[in-house]
Amino acid sequence: MSEAREAGAAPAGAVVVDDTLRRFAAAVFARAGMSAAHAETVADALVWANLRGIDSHGVTRIPRYLEMIDVGDLDPRPALVVRVETPASVLIEADRAAGPVAMTFAMGSAVRKAKAVGVGLALVRATTHTAALGYYTLTAAHDGMAAIALAGSVPMMAYHGARAAGVSTSPISIAVPGGARGPLVLDMATSIVSMGKLIRARQIGGAIPEGWALDDHGHPTTDARTAAIPLPVGGPKGSGLSLMIECLTSLMVANPILAEALSGTAEGHRHKQNGLALAIDVARFCDPASFRDQVDRLIATLKALPRAHDDVEILMPGERARRTLEQRSRNGIPLPRSVMDELGAVAARLGVAMFSASARA
Amino acid sequence: MSEAREAGAAPAGAVVVDDTLRRFAAAVFARAGMSAAHAETVADALVWANLRGIDSHGVTRIPRYLEMIDVGDLDPRPALVVRVETPASVLIEADRAAGPVAMTFAMGSAVRKAKAVGVGLALVRATTHTAALGYYTLTAAHDGMAAIALAGSVPMMAYHGARAAGVSTSPISIAVPGGARGPLVLDMATSIVSMGKLIRARQIGGAIPEGWALDDHGHPTTDARTAAIPLPVGGPKGSGLSLMIECLTSLMVANPILAEALSGTAEGHRHKQNGLALAIDVARFCDPASFRDQVDRLIATLKALPRAHDDVEILMPGERARRTLEQRSRNGIPLPRSVMDELGAVAARLGVAMFSASARA
Repeated sequence: MSEAREAGAAPAGAVVVDDTLRRFAAAVFARAGMSAAHAETVADALVWANLRGIDSHGVTRIPRYLEMIDVGDLDPRPALVVRVETPASVLIEADRAAGPVAMTFAMGSAVRKAKAVGVGLALVRATTHTAALGYYTLTAAHDGMAAIALAGSVPMMAYHGARAAGVSTSPISIAVPGGARGPLVLDMATSIVSMGKLIRARQIGGAIPEGWALDDHGHPTTDARTAAIPLPVGGPKGSGLSLMIECLTSLMVANPILAEALSGTAEGHRHKQNGLALAIDVARFCDPASFRDQVDRLIATLKALPRAHDDVEILMPGERARRTLEQRSRNGIPLPRSVMDELGAVAARLGVAMFSASARA
Repeated sequence: MSEAREAGAAPAGAVVVDDTLRRFAAAVFARAGMSAAHAETVADALVWANLRGIDSHGVTRIPRYLEMIDVGDLDPRPALVVRVETPASVLIEADRAAGPVAMTFAMGSAVRKAKAVGVGLALVRATTHTAALGYYTLTAAHDGMAAIALAGSVPMMAYHGARAAGVSTSPISIAVPGGARGPLVLDMATSIVSMGKLIRARQIGGAIPEGWALDDHGHPTTDARTAAIPLPVGGPKGSGLSLMIECLTSLMVANPILAEALSGTAEGHRHKQNGLALAIDVARFCDPASFRDQVDRLIATLKALPRAHDDVEILMPGERARRTLEQRSRNGIPLPRSVMDELGAVAARLGVAMFSASARA
């Protein structure tokens, strides 16, 4: 974000139909060297996040993904290989594939294994930014699975007791099939607030609540402009979860991220992530129709609880995102001027036609 | 806790050798109807918690476990049956077995499956209080596994946005094998503070931090005496995790707890828990010696981070508990007078010899 853009009167953004944005993103990634199928997968994962209001994991990532391709951290033509395979599991060498390509393949493998033997595990070695994990767990939930996805990434969150980044804001997503009220999908960072939210707060300025972040020197701050290092949710709980996720993903696939980065090795400076996808076939353990009914019943029961205040609503994991999805599927995805500018520059550089920013009626 | 006991000058407690306490607890459970093997398993799980300083999950639970037997909520002679079995999974009908009996069987099954096919899942239907989940994950870690354990229980924690208990403080435990520095074992409630800690604070009185709890009317309180309902860690994150745990455990085994309890059904008033144990065989996916070295390296790297203050220590999940274990294995387990009294009453009622409270030298 340039200072000038922030300081000046912000020009209005645009509203874009999801199909238009998806086609544009796919064209960009294809031009950057990906196969049509891989380009479409990455485009779909990013636009999915925009549709659900998780804009930090949407098309705003396109310039960064291209930069990763330029420097060789993301291989647009990866040789994805299954290194280990058992009746219940796979270990996938992702060869620096785009995260959505590797994680989609992984969750698909986990679901296939789960359909065969009840539970399926896929470990992913050496992928890149895994995007919004809910994309994969929700897909599995639509396929009748309870699903879990985890990702290990670079140190950017304070480890409890330290005044420096020691662990990642490692996300956790869990989804289960639902009934009339739809599936439940939790998708959370292990930090109190996500890095994306912190960066936005930093751009806007003002005060942030105590306990959100440290500044560059590792001191607690409530000044958004100086917020640099997010703090873990629940202190040792959040940083403990994140540490265990590094063990379950990165160490399990012999591709450590945290220790390499913190030791300042050459390998530690390269962008990479590792992932885990787990699927459990609901139909193997109970009647799936009853399960869906019980999810509905549980939702109804929780929503009927007395509310903390008159102006709060009791929301289920993924509920707000689904509302945004419905609204944006109808009315289009709003993109700030700054994102439009960045995508325009990408289009010009790669010779891809820039999309027109007109929303559906 | 009687008022008199709190108000009077607290008599000194006792210090007990772990073996003595284990034998006593096993004798009590055997007298209450359990097989010798089951009684020893339950005794071992409780004393394990005491040894590690998790006293809320230690022998202080004995009177409550006996009460559950008396009212028929805990069956001391359960017919544990494997209802579903695949090459990678089992569903165990626990038939109201003591939690440690069911969960030990479950994690053992998960480990056996993982050794065969890389990953093993055990779902547990209708057990009772699952005790400290770290007991099961750590056992699996000592067997070369990365392990996860979850438990679904009665509503006692506020669901985010509600001013009433809607979900459990459902625990999550994750453990991995370690090297010279030992395994990592995370064992956390999804509340900011555990119910046990809240109950202790309530007994002592004074102020508690904002955000810990609601009072009986569902209003936020900082007065420990009125603290009744723990709040979820990270608001929607903690209550979302807990909700998903109910789905992964209770709904998966067709034994809903939350909706039954919140609807006030007869079944909803009975004590019960459901559980999940997952094991991943490290050796199947990477060199286990390298994995252990990398865990050590990661610990060393995190401990070398600059500390938040001079007087804090950067601790790993389970590290404080292991220190307590070493200390209490040597010097004995301290038991407050109130617990000694309760155990004395149990001993007298069941005709079991009360242990002598002399510590090792």
